[in-house]
Order: sequence, then structure tokens, then C-alpha cells
Amino acid sequence: MTDLTKHILLMDGPDQKGLIYHVTGVLFRQGLNIIHNDEYVSPNGQFFMRTEFESATNQLDGPALLSQLSENLSPDINLRLNPKKKKNVVLLVTKEHHCLGELLIRYAFDELDADILAVVSNYNHLQPLVSKFGIPFHYISHEHKTRDEHEEAILRTLAIYDPEYLVLAKYMRVLTPGFVRHFSNRIINIHHSFLPAFVGASPYRQAHERGVKIIGATAHFVNNDLDEGPIITQDVKEVDHRHTANDMATMGRDVEKLVLSKALKLVFDDRVFIHNNRTVVF
Amino acid sequence: MTDLTKHILLMDGPDQKGLIYHVTGVLFRQGLNIIHNDEYVSPNGQFFMRTEFESATNQLDGPALLSQLSENLSPDINLRLNPKKKKNVVLLVTKEHHCLGELLIRYAFDELDADILAVVSNYNHLQPLVSKFGIPFHYISHEHKTRDEHEEAILRTLAIYDPEYLVLAKYMRVLTPGFVRHFSNRIINIHHSFLPAFVGASPYRQAHERGVKIIGATAHFVNNDLDEGPIITQDVKEVDHRHTANDMATMGRDVEKLVLSKALKLVFDDRVFIHNNRTVVF
Amino acid sequence: MTDLTKHILLMDGPDQKGLIYHVTGVLFRQGLNIIHNDEYVSPNGQFFMRTEFESATNQLDGPALLSQLSENLSPDINLRLNPKKKKNVVLLVTKEHHCLGELLIRYAFDELDADILAVVSNYNHLQPLVSKFGIPFHYISHEHKTRDEHEEAILRTLAIYDPEYLVLAKYMRVLTPGFVRHFSNRIINIHHSFLPAFVGASPYRQAHERGVKIIGATAHFVNNDLDEGPIITQDVKEVDHRHTANDMATMGRDVEKLVLSKALKLVFDDRVFIHNNRTVVF
Amino acid sequence: MTDLTKHILLMDGPDQKGLIYHVTGVLFRQGLNIIHNDEYVSPNGQFFMRTEFESATNQLDGPALLSQLSENLSPDINLRLNPKKKKNVVLLVTKEHHCLGELLIRYAFDELDADILAVVSNYNHLQPLVSKFGIPFHYISHEHKTRDEHEEAILRTLAIYDPEYLVLAKYMRVLTPGFVRHFSNRIINIHHSFLPAFVGASPYRQAHERGVKIIGATAHFVNNDLDEGPIITQDVKEVDHRHTANDMATMGRDVEKLVLSKALKLVFDDRVFIHNNRTVVF
Repeated sequence: MTDLTKHILLMDGPDQKGLIYHVTGVLFRQGLNIIHNDEYVSPNGQFFMRTEFESATNQLDGPALLSQLSENLSPDINLRLNPKKKKNVVLLVTKEHHCLGELLIRYAFDELDADILAVVSNYNHLQPLVSKFGIPFHYISHEHKTRDEHEEAILRTLAIYDPEYLVLAKYMRVLTPGFVRHFSNRIINIHHSFLPAFVGASPYRQAHERGVKIIGATAHFVNNDLDEGPIITQDVKEVDHRHTANDMATMGRDVEKLVLSKALKLVFDDRVFIHNNRTVVF
Repeated sequence: MTDLTKHILLMDGPDQKGLIYHVTGVLFRQGLNIIHNDEYVSPNGQFFMRTEFESATNQLDGPALLSQLSENLSPDINLRLNPKKKKNVVLLVTKEHHCLGELLIRYAFDELDADILAVVSNYNHLQPLVSKFGIPFHYISHEHKTRDEHEEAILRTLAIYDPEYLVLAKYMRVLTPGFVRHFSNRIINIHHSFLPAFVGASPYRQAHERGVKIIGATAHFVNNDLDEGPIITQDVKEVDHRHTANDMATMGRDVEKLVLSKALKLVFDDRVFIHNNRTVVF
Repeated sequence: MTDLTKHILLMDGPDQKGLIYHVTGVLFRQGLNIIHNDEYVSPNGQFFMRTEFESATNQLDGPALLSQLSENLSPDINLRLNPKKKKNVVLLVTKEHHCLGELLIRYAFDELDADILAVVSNYNHLQPLVSKFGIPFHYISHEHKTRDEHEEAILRTLAIYDPEYLVLAKYMRVLTPGFVRHFSNRIINIHHSFLPAFVGASPYRQAHERGVKIIGATAHFVNNDLDEGPIITQDVKEVDHRHTANDMATMGRDVEKLVLSKALKLVFDDRVFIHNNRTVVF
Repeated sequence: MTDLTKHILLMDGPDQKGLIYHVTGVLFRQGLNIIHNDEYVSPNGQFFMRTEFESATNQLDGPALLSQLSENLSPDINLRLNPKKKKNVVLLVTKEHHCLGELLIRYAFDELDADILAVVSNYNHLQPLVSKFGIPFHYISHEHKTRDEHEEAILRTLAIYDPEYLVLAKYMRVLTPGFVRHFSNRIINIHHSFLPAFVGASPYRQAHERGVKIIGATAHFVNNDLDEGPIITQDVKEVDHRHTANDMATMGRDVEKLVLSKALKLVFDDRVFIHNNRTVVF
């Protein structure tokens, strides 16, 4: 029996008639077996397709396949071919442990679809937790540094690991456009509110002040505008007048950690497209 | 066997030691039976209590009871005694039928805890629906009128009915402070977003634009700042990239009508206190 | 500019390599434009596909298209081609109004994707509501009739309308296999519990007795085993110890009516496949 | 300034007029300050009350207070007075890590309202995780032992710790009535279904088989009938046809761990009464 390897083909661009037919035809003629196929065309005519297929191990000539696929296609169409495999990530944290703890436990039991290469923090509070799991912890304080110096120090550390994604697992400092540019569409943040409600600092205090009856959390890609990047997933929880801002923060942590986990699962499995500051999630 | 009548005692003000003891004592000594009691003290020391009790029909001397209850109480404490009975309401609508339809069906089957005295609208689109249920419909167009003239005309019509509450069941015009002042804390609105996200017009378009993954609706009291009044209840529904702004509006209607119904049920049963632009809901 | 008509192609059967390629190819060569395409292959190798496409009005030769599509296909594969249009339905009700009211309001404002041809009931309680909407109401009492006689009488009435679907909008009598056989996979029921919890009568009483913290409702196709048919959609609501069985029933009604509406929307838009007593819902 | 200590007074039994008045009066006359008070009377006349109050540290004579409170009270009324403090617990687990991991992280950051004295398991799979947190792990295999011998061995280990509560954090063996009797109303289990749907083994396989659209988890007290004990809390998650039984199990784990955490928080804070196999949760 042949060993099989899974691959993910990602395609997006302006829609044209026959795109699905074209792609499935190329794969069919190559004898490649489609396991899942998702496609979507937005009302303004943008086409998105994610095709999971398998080949005999070591038998796929990726560049040749891509070249065949792009024949007759508009050059505006963006094609990527990924092996189905774990992503390499570095986590950035500050003092709160809940998202980090969630990701470490999942990682320890091989449920994260990612390898956590290292954890970087501007405080050393979480070092004991991280060391329990045998992962490098880099304490890079922001004190006595300019913002640029601090980010430079982080970038030097990241350079050691060369991660595919940065996960801001409650990293409580704003990143500059200069920093973000290094990881375009590869930084995922968890924001502790149901965006766009309560952008900025202290969202649970703001939520309590406003008297909302539901709180939430939002996982999103980071771009240059704080809290304005494409939303990946959100979830909510009911609260009432008896909940203080602190209670809301406590309850919110459970939402945050699951929303972040869910978003990572989707991103790491190549299920998330970005278009016009919105996501298409298969 | 004696006939029994239910009453609701509402009390709020600065907390002082022994308030529950005082109130339950007065009721106990009068032989009045407490059916439900809810109380809450906010972290900043505001006391709220709602006590549902019963007396032999026609045997309760309300003013005497209130006077006994207020003995030894700080004058800052606000006491109200309501019979448990249906509220009189007038609905304001524009063109959308879903909230109105929901309320009419509930009313027709005696599930609203209110009598709908009339429906007022700035369009006549919903007249056929309202007439099916034998309720007066007043078409008061805003065309060729200044905002003040229009509100004056509505006020004149409302004066006929003297309602305890106005329900804005998708009334799509902003009310002036002058109008609102006539019905302080007695106007309930349904806003088609998860406030404070997407205040103002076209919230579903805004939500789609921002790429949110959850939409919602908010029932709130109306005060002078548009969409800024105390929130009574909220609910949400998941959406994804496949939903257009129109789809979101369609799905949102189901949320809106149930959120409004739920809020009305709470308000009409005297379960909602307002304090510092927030609600305490028992 | 050409008028366009929408069509829905439904296909299910044992998976074989190249099915999507085959179907999209036939449509592509006919110049037919795919608007949406959904496909799914179950782990045990069953293929499901729903393709929404458009043709110039009156220009589609349906039988010819089906014949082309079925060339080279395994005869086990089931192909259907529906115009995208409203379904004809008859509602069966007993005494409860909430699902009926919901469907009537939606129908009155053209939001049901169906024409309600008639309402049949074993009681006359809901006649006044139905007449408000100008729909024929048939009161067919079950009293003084055997079960078979009663069902025969209903069938005779249904024969007048020849509906595509029967909707049991809180019809509280069990249908016999003999009756169900006339409408195989075309009867939709709303059950007032989160099936398979609390099958049979008085589910809210059962739920209260068991002390559950969440109640629910289930829309499903009816087959010969009571409450055992394929589930289309479900939803839930939180309850607590303060809710009596009656309160649960009241709250449950809001869930029931929305769950039924949602299920109907899916079925009437040809989005629901049945396989092995389960549904695939696109 | 005086140091203050919090206490929780729990009271339940047949309702009688004036109970709240009586209790609040005793506390008032002692100068004890009520922080929160919750009461509930069931429709069949059972009274429940939880009163959180504070006294100057070391100044409360508990037995004297209880004796004063029980004066004039029916002997059917059950009174308990607990200091507000962490509970001592032992966890029982089998092979699954998700609930255990959740509880360990919360414990490590002092968020559990409990001290985990030890973890007992019939497998040694989870020893590495437990040791990271410096908690004793007892591997007590059930192999080559009768059920009674196995339970005896566990009881001997538990005797070392004398825990107030046992938490079955995915302990996959049925406990005998003889074992349960030692911890009456003090064993909390997480069941991987929305009980009473899918009692017994493999609930996700059963759920998948039945084609449900929502899965859930239930935290409950354990009594002699498997999966039949009083429910503390439940939560759910939506699934669809694309989810295999395995996917449901994976998704279900997130629900299970949060439902268990939430139930423990409620129980450990003395917020849960048991009556007639149901819970009253304040």
C-alpha cells in the first residue's frame, strides 16, 4: 500500500467562468484525489478556493502542478500550494497566563497544529509556566528602552527562530507599523472585546461602564491600525448587572482563550483568506 | 377561599444596613405573603429590591403601606408600589414588519403583558397588518413637516391614549430631546446592532464592511443621546463571509424581534431598574 | 439584457473521482453560470453536491442537461434539477399558535420561500388567526373517528391542494406509517425538545423533572418512528431552577418557532439531503 | 481598621412566612453585614437561601449564631455556616488531559477556589502533566483487580487526603454505590453529552449516529444511577454533517472543560443546593 501525503491548494482572485472545472480537471488528470473542496465567490466577484488533496508521498512535483494550474489563468489569480503540516510559531505574552496556558497544554498534547518555538515576553511573570513545558522563554523588558529599541530586541530574538506566525497571546503593547511589516498577515492577536465595540485599552471596564449584557472576544490579524485588522473569529458570553468589570474580565478570559485557539486552528490549517480587510474562512 | 391580588414593591437608593430586614418585617407584620424577592447591592453601594407579594383582593391600603415602609428610611430611598397588571402601550413603527408582527401575535394571544392601544407610523405600509388585529393605526407622515411639527402631531395622537410606555418597534427616525422628555425612561427602542458597536444608521452594512463574525441586537431605553440609553437586553447570532449585508439584516430581524419581546416582558413586569445609565434586571 | 432564471442541481450517491470536474464541465460547456456550489463527501464515501446556476429564461432544456450529466455516471447517483421557486405547502396544527403565527407573518410579507395553500387542524381554535391572513382553514376533528378515519379525512383534504411539503407546526397527534408513506421525506415537524432527549409527550415537564439547565427544540423530517426522523436543525436556550415546566414551555416556544422557520428555509431552498437517517445541510 | 472575614450561611427546608425577616433580623442585631443574599422558594414550597456576610476576623461565634438562627424554626430546616475558603479536592482521571490541564492551570494561578491535594488515575498517562505542577499523582491500575478491590485501593489513597470533594475530570469508570456512599453529594462528574441525551458510553459516537446539530456537556453530582445525578450546569456547541464523531469529541472537549470549571466554581463557592435530584444554583 502506498503512503499518502496531504496538500492544500489555495487560490484567490477575480472570478472567471470555469475556474472550479479547470482546477478539478488538472488534479483529476494527474490522478490526485480531492479530499475536501471549498469555494466561495463574493458578491463583488472575488473567487476563493481551498482544495485539500492527496498524492503518493514524495511523488508530487509542486512547481509543475502550479505551472499547469496557472496556464490560461488570469495573472491576477493567486495560487499557493502548501504541504499539510504544522506551522512554526512564536508566542508574545505580557503577564496574563490564560491564553498561554491554553496553548501550552494543547501543544503538550499535540493538539495545536503548530510547534511553539519560543515565548517572548516584556515581563518575566510567565517564565515558570513556560519552563514547565520545556520551551525557551525570552524576557525582553521594555523598560529603559525606546519603543523602537524594544521592538528591535524582539526582532533579533525572533530572527533566531524565523517563525511563520507570531501569536499575541495577550501581549499588551501596541506594535509599530515598522514591526508589523515584517510579518504581514502573519500576526494573530486576541482582543478582549467584541470588536469593533471597545477598541483600545480596558475594554471590560468600558463594557461595564456602558452596561452591556454580553461581552466578547475577537481574534484578528494585526495590521497598522490598532484593533482594525481582519477578524478571524469571535465569541461572546452573557453578563448582567451583578458582574463587575473584574468579573467580566475573569469570564472573558475563558472566551478569549477559546477564541484564540479556534482562530489559530483555522489559520494553521490554511483555512483563512484575507481580502479587503475581511476574512473568508473555510 | 379568599381572592388574592399580586403587588410589586420596588425600592432603590443608597444601601443601609438592615434594609431587607426592615421591608420583610413590615410585610410580615401586615400578614402579606412574599412570593418572590430579589435584591442587589452594587459595589458602589446602591441598593435595589423588587418584592412580589400578595394580599387579599381589595384589602391592601397602598399609601399606608408605603408610609410604614418609608419610616426610618433615608429620604434618598425611592419606593414604588404597583399592582401586577398589564401596561398600556403605543407602538411606533416605520416600514419594517417583523417586530410589529411579533408583538401583534403575542398581543392577540395575551402573551405580551401589555395592551397595545394604538400603532403610530410615519408610513402607511403596515396599516393592513395592524388592521387584521383590530388596533387603531395612525399614519402621521413626516413629509412636508419640520421635525418639531411631526413630533407635535405624534404627541397629539399619543395624548388620546396616554400610554405608560412607547415602544419603538423599528421606528427609524431620531426623536428630539423635547419629545423624549415627555416619556422619561418610558421609551423602549430596538437597535439593530450589538451596541455600542455600530451606532447610527445602517448597522448591518457597517457590520458587513468590518467583517464581523457575530451580529446582534440591543433593546434599550431612549434618552437624549442616540443609541446611548440604558441597555435592557442583547442577543447575537453568528455570521460568516457568505452573508451579505442584506443576509445579515434578514437574520438580524429574528434576533431583533426576540430581543425586543424579551425586553418588554422584563420592563412590563417591573423587573428593570435604571441607575447611572445602566440597568439592573431581576 | 437577457432575463435570467436560477436552477438548483442536486446530486448524491457513491463518490467517484472526478465528479465535480464532470458536473462543472457539463455546465461550463453549456455556458451556464454557477452562482454557488457546495459539495461534501462523507467519510464512508457518499458524495453530495448542490449547484445553483443560472440560464437565460426559458432557454434551459432540463431533460437534456440531466441526460448529459448522467452520462458515464454510476446509476447509483441520484440527480435532480429544480427551478428555484417557492414550494407549495399545507400546515397542520392543533391548538398552539406560536409556530403558525410566525409562519403566517413571514408568508404575509413574502419571507417564507413557500405558498401556504391551507391550514388543517384537529381543533378550530386557530381559525380566527388563519382567517386574518385569508388562507383556507380546514377543521377536521379527530373526535368520534378512528385514527384511520381521521387520517383519511385529512388525506382527502390534502388531495385538493397536492402540496409538496406538509409542515407540522405543533400538530400534536402521531401520524401512522400509512399516512407518512404518502409524503416520504416531505413532512417536517417541530419537536419541543432537544432530541433525542425527551422524546414523546410533555418534554418540558420531563425537562423540568430532570432538572436540565438548557432546553431546546428540534426540526426534523417525520418517518415511521416517532421523533426518530432525520434532524434538520436544533437550537437551545438556558434555563435555571426558577423556571417551572410552564415557564420552560413559554420560553421554548420562541426557540421552536425560529427553529422551524430556519428548517423550512433550508428545506424549501433545496439545501437538505437525507442519508442514513441524517441530514447534510448546505 | 478591623480585619473582616466572610462567611456563608446556607439554609433550606419547607417554606414558612417570615424566614427572610427572621434571618436578616438575627444578622442585623448581631451587627453582621450582609454582602449578598439570594433566596428562592420552589412552587412546591421549598425554601432556599444563601447569605454571604462578614464579621470582624475571629469574632464570630458560629455555634451561637446557628443556635440563635434555629430558634423558632421548624426542625425540618437545614442550616449550615461555612467560612468562605478554598475547598480541598482530589481529582480522578483516566487518560484524557483536557479537563485536568484546565484545572491544573487554574490551580497554578490560584483561580480554582480549591486546593488540589492529589490526582488519582487508573492509568499513568497523565503523570508527566501532573508532575509539572508538583501535585502528588497516584497510579492505581484497575487491572488484575476486582471492581471492589480497585475502589478499596482508591479509598485507601483518598483517606490520606480526606478531601471535601472528589472531581471526576474524565474518569472513565463507573463507581459503585458503595463507593459513592462515602462522598454523598460530594462527587462531581463531567459527562460528555447534553444529558439526558446519550447516557452511557461513547456519547459522541451516539450523537454522530443520531445526526444531532448540537452537542453538549453536563456537569453533575454523582449518585447511584449512572448519569442520573443532579445537574449543575450544561453547555452546548453547534455541529454539522461535516463533523465526524471524532471531530465532535475534539470540539466537545472545549465544552467539557469549561462546563466542569464553571460547575466547580459554583460548588466550591457554596452556591449549589440539591433537592429532589435537581439543583438550585445561586
